[in-house]
Amino acid sequence: MTGSITQKVAALGRQLPQVAAPAGNYVSTVRVGNLLFVAGQIGSHVHGSGYAGRIGADFDVEQGRQAAQAACLNVLAQIVAVTNDRVSAVRRVARLGVFVASTPEFTRQLDVANGASDLIAAVFGEAGKHARAAVGVASLPHGALVEVDAIIELTEV
Amino acid sequence: MTGSITQKVAALGRQLPQVAAPAGNYVSTVRVGNLLFVAGQIGSHVHGSGYAGRIGADFDVEQGRQAAQAACLNVLAQIVAVTNDRVSAVRRVARLGVFVASTPEFTRQLDVANGASDLIAAVFGEAGKHARAAVGVASLPHGALVEVDAIIELTEV
Amino acid sequence: MTGSITQKVAALGRQLPQVAAPAGNYVSTVRVGNLLFVAGQIGSHVHGSGYAGRIGADFDVEQGRQAAQAACLNVLAQIVAVTNDRVSAVRRVARLGVFVASTPEFTRQLDVANGASDLIAAVFGEAGKHARAAVGVASLPHGALVEVDAIIELTEV
Repeated sequence: MTGSITQKVAALGRQLPQVAAPAGNYVSTVRVGNLLFVAGQIGSHVHGSGYAGRIGADFDVEQGRQAAQAACLNVLAQIVAVTNDRVSAVRRVARLGVFVASTPEFTRQLDVANGASDLIAAVFGEAGKHARAAVGVASLPHGALVEVDAIIELTEV
Repeated sequence: MTGSITQKVAALGRQLPQVAAPAGNYVSTVRVGNLLFVAGQIGSHVHGSGYAGRIGADFDVEQGRQAAQAACLNVLAQIVAVTNDRVSAVRRVARLGVFVASTPEFTRQLDVANGASDLIAAVFGEAGKHARAAVGVASLPHGALVEVDAIIELTEV
Repeated sequence: MTGSITQKVAALGRQLPQVAAPAGNYVSTVRVGNLLFVAGQIGSHVHGSGYAGRIGADFDVEQGRQAAQAACLNVLAQIVAVTNDRVSAVRRVARLGVFVASTPEFTRQLDVANGASDLIAAVFGEAGKHARAAVGVASLPHGALVEVDAIIELTEV
């Protein structure tokens, strides 16, 4: 595919957030050869450090799906920063890890995770189809509903 | 090692499940060079989308161990699909991620995870000895008790 | 950087624990090319298999940070075993996974995870700055408060 990641996202009616530098001794992306490790991203709309809630109690599947999409927009923004915004720089999205803040009874993590999977596949096409692990966790940083991390295969080392 | 993965599994008295295509914009395996990323797998015996329970409350360690083995059979089935069922195509099982649906009080995730580790080591021998992270999660897709994902080193790129 | 990892840790006023062999069909580290996969490590001070507690209820952020540091010391000890204790053998710490035993209301996993991130960055400098995923889990093996796993880029294949 050609074009910019930003344009692909805009064509989907969405907008990439500003990339925030992580506040600590870690970084948002690390490259090893042609593998890009993207740190866990949460949605930019998440503010404050208080308890925001869990899916299955305070939020439903659709809200979870939107939170997964928001987290994935941040993953995309990190990829943009590394690739100079070129869709063609991504050979393959290898793996997404999707962590969903869940009650013990909530079991629709796959539907929630599709918010991230559908978005990244819409941007990169076949190259966007990834292996995935989606699990329900007790809680997430800043009370986020969803956290997404990624391993990306780049076209150039 | 030589022979087929299916035969190794049969010699252990177990049977590989049919590989199910994932229902979404993700895939079961992605290959990057000689690394194979296997998506999170749950046991084939898990049906329905309701709450199935957690280990430490509704299920015990032995049932968890069996669920880990069932999830690992699906990991093996995914490897079979990629390698044309050849044991020799796997140079090394690099890493298993084992997510165990747990109560806050349950702390025997290592014993549960051995259900997966023992099986994959029995199939691949020394090449099956892997790095592992085993953690207790709040809940899993479809109410599964255990989810297992994997990174495999293949012999051929 | 030059020198030994043990010396760097000692200069920080800490000591590397003895490496314990994992009790099962898995191993502490697997090398694939120049990638080193380090299995999930918990703190050496954790004993027994009973419920130890969760951060947000029985323990606070500072205790969590110390548990993350203790787990990271074990990650470092595993790296020492593979690299013959040479700082220069690590080209980059690619990724840390930090699992924090949390109540549903606890949302400061990033502060807890900094216990690991700050330590590994102090040892390896710029090469120690890693991508990271920090999440709150229901419970951990042996009642640990924090589990840390890692992917390391080595300088030599």
